[in-house]
Amino acid sequence: MKLHILGCYAATPRTMTNPSSQVLEIRNHLFLIDCGEGTQVQLRKNKIKFSRINHIFISHLHGDHFFGLPGLISTFRLLGRDKEMHIYGPKGIKEAITLLLKLGDSWTNYPLVFHELVSKDSELIFEDAKVTVETIPLDHRVYTNGFLFKEKIAERTLDIDAVNKNNINRAYFQNIKNGKDVVLENGTVIPNTELSFDPPAPMSYAYCSDTAMRIEVVPQITGVDVLYHESTFLESENHLTAKTKHATAKEAANIAKEAKVGTLLLGHYSTRYKSIDLFKEEAETIFDNVQLADDGKLFEF
Amino acid sequence: MKLHILGCYAATPRTMTNPSSQVLEIRNHLFLIDCGEGTQVQLRKNKIKFSRINHIFISHLHGDHFFGLPGLISTFRLLGRDKEMHIYGPKGIKEAITLLLKLGDSWTNYPLVFHELVSKDSELIFEDAKVTVETIPLDHRVYTNGFLFKEKIAERTLDIDAVNKNNINRAYFQNIKNGKDVVLENGTVIPNTELSFDPPAPMSYAYCSDTAMRIEVVPQITGVDVLYHESTFLESENHLTAKTKHATAKEAANIAKEAKVGTLLLGHYSTRYKSIDLFKEEAETIFDNVQLADDGKLFEF
Repeated sequence: MKLHILGCYAATPRTMTNPSSQVLEIRNHLFLIDCGEGTQVQLRKNKIKFSRINHIFISHLHGDHFFGLPGLISTFRLLGRDKEMHIYGPKGIKEAITLLLKLGDSWTNYPLVFHELVSKDSELIFEDAKVTVETIPLDHRVYTNGFLFKEKIAERTLDIDAVNKNNINRAYFQNIKNGKDVVLENGTVIPNTELSFDPPAPMSYAYCSDTAMRIEVVPQITGVDVLYHESTFLESENHLTAKTKHATAKEAANIAKEAKVGTLLLGHYSTRYKSIDLFKEEAETIFDNVQLADDGKLFEF
Repeated sequence: MKLHILGCYAATPRTMTNPSSQVLEIRNHLFLIDCGEGTQVQLRKNKIKFSRINHIFISHLHGDHFFGLPGLISTFRLLGRDKEMHIYGPKGIKEAITLLLKLGDSWTNYPLVFHELVSKDSELIFEDAKVTVETIPLDHRVYTNGFLFKEKIAERTLDIDAVNKNNINRAYFQNIKNGKDVVLENGTVIPNTELSFDPPAPMSYAYCSDTAMRIEVVPQITGVDVLYHESTFLESENHLTAKTKHATAKEAANIAKEAKVGTLLLGHYSTRYKSIDLFKEEAETIFDNVQLADDGKLFEF
């Protein structure tokens, strides 16, 4: 599982800081999560193949998470895309994109499929043989969802030596990968564990931005390998969280601790602070495994 | 008159090339012309004071001229703006911006004044004591206007030595600046030309992008000091101009020649070419004074 951070700073784009956008590589999918202004340039800088993106997840309709989407959609058209593009985001996103395309008389030559979200409860919004994606209801000034990406348990891996030694026909291979024992023609049963290895543990990633600290997310994200949680502020500015509906680094760390996640990844930093190291220091007073997102950084988990 | 080129490349923003946007400094105004994605970052890079921009002119509603506007409007709010912002552009621009602000529940705390354009004839859309702005109807795939910025003739400059020598009361100064002669109490008439100098010649700037070559613009822009004319293509691609409604460098030079402009400034280059010098070379076969716009370049005229 790889995570490309394209932008992880709060509010307005600046010369050196980009608004929210990231690409999660998971089981051969490239999921684009949020799309602040300038995302398409960040995709190019990070050498991410545009054509491999088929699903875009938008947490909420504030500009710093969304205003790069119209341009990206237009660019896909100019690049000659013909595959479907699936866009998941709050109700209204379809009307906005449709109006902008209409005004520019620039309809896409590929199908745009909108999945508009309205539920205040978690929903399963994507599923295939390898991955599921659920919404994580968050607490922000407008309707906002985080997203929980989970790998499914993969197939078991054939133990080729054991399979050959037992002279097992190829016709059984898929059953073995699916965890079945093999019954030979003479009636002998060979247990699956003697013919295959455990698959890699399925990974999971939770994206929680933007949000005030919301303890209700804990049951849903308990045990995830990686939690990206916004930390717009430090505790010194905790008087701002109620009005702005953002969280502090300490609050993010509390969520990580309660949910017993593997790694806490901080982001969505206000640019008022001298150094983002301050966020890590504050979170580490609560939770051990803290990492800092930063624009252009690639994490492999 | 100064012109800051923030972006002057066609179509999609790239790592090193920005879509259309420029700032014209004229008689203490900072006019923003077009606003492709990333314009606000380009304003920062070029150290242009956001608070001095009060008028934004949008030629047409294609993304590469317009998709930076929602983010810029939001940033003005975050910067605490309270002055009116005037936005001139094709009908529909108000609906688009209003919808985006509504979806983000991010209304501006300053007045946004939209001046929506629908006329196919040139219109005077701005006038104050020093400057006028007119639309220049263009020929593109969607409704598009260029803009003609003209300084008015400035006041005459007092010849302080002559004024003192003739012992003229301050009460007459404004009349002298306005070109009036002075009649002394004894009846003597001192001609204005003995008391003041000619004002600097008024400057003018025509912005023509995006457009196919449109010979009908010539009468309106004849004699302008500077013409920015799009040159998406070279003549080698002139088979593309009819469908795309763009112009070649040679066509831009023909317009400059017919209109007897002072300087032709080329821009809106397709990124298919190895070097933008090729546009200059082609235009110079028709017209002498050709300059190349480029992102981050500042022209003083």
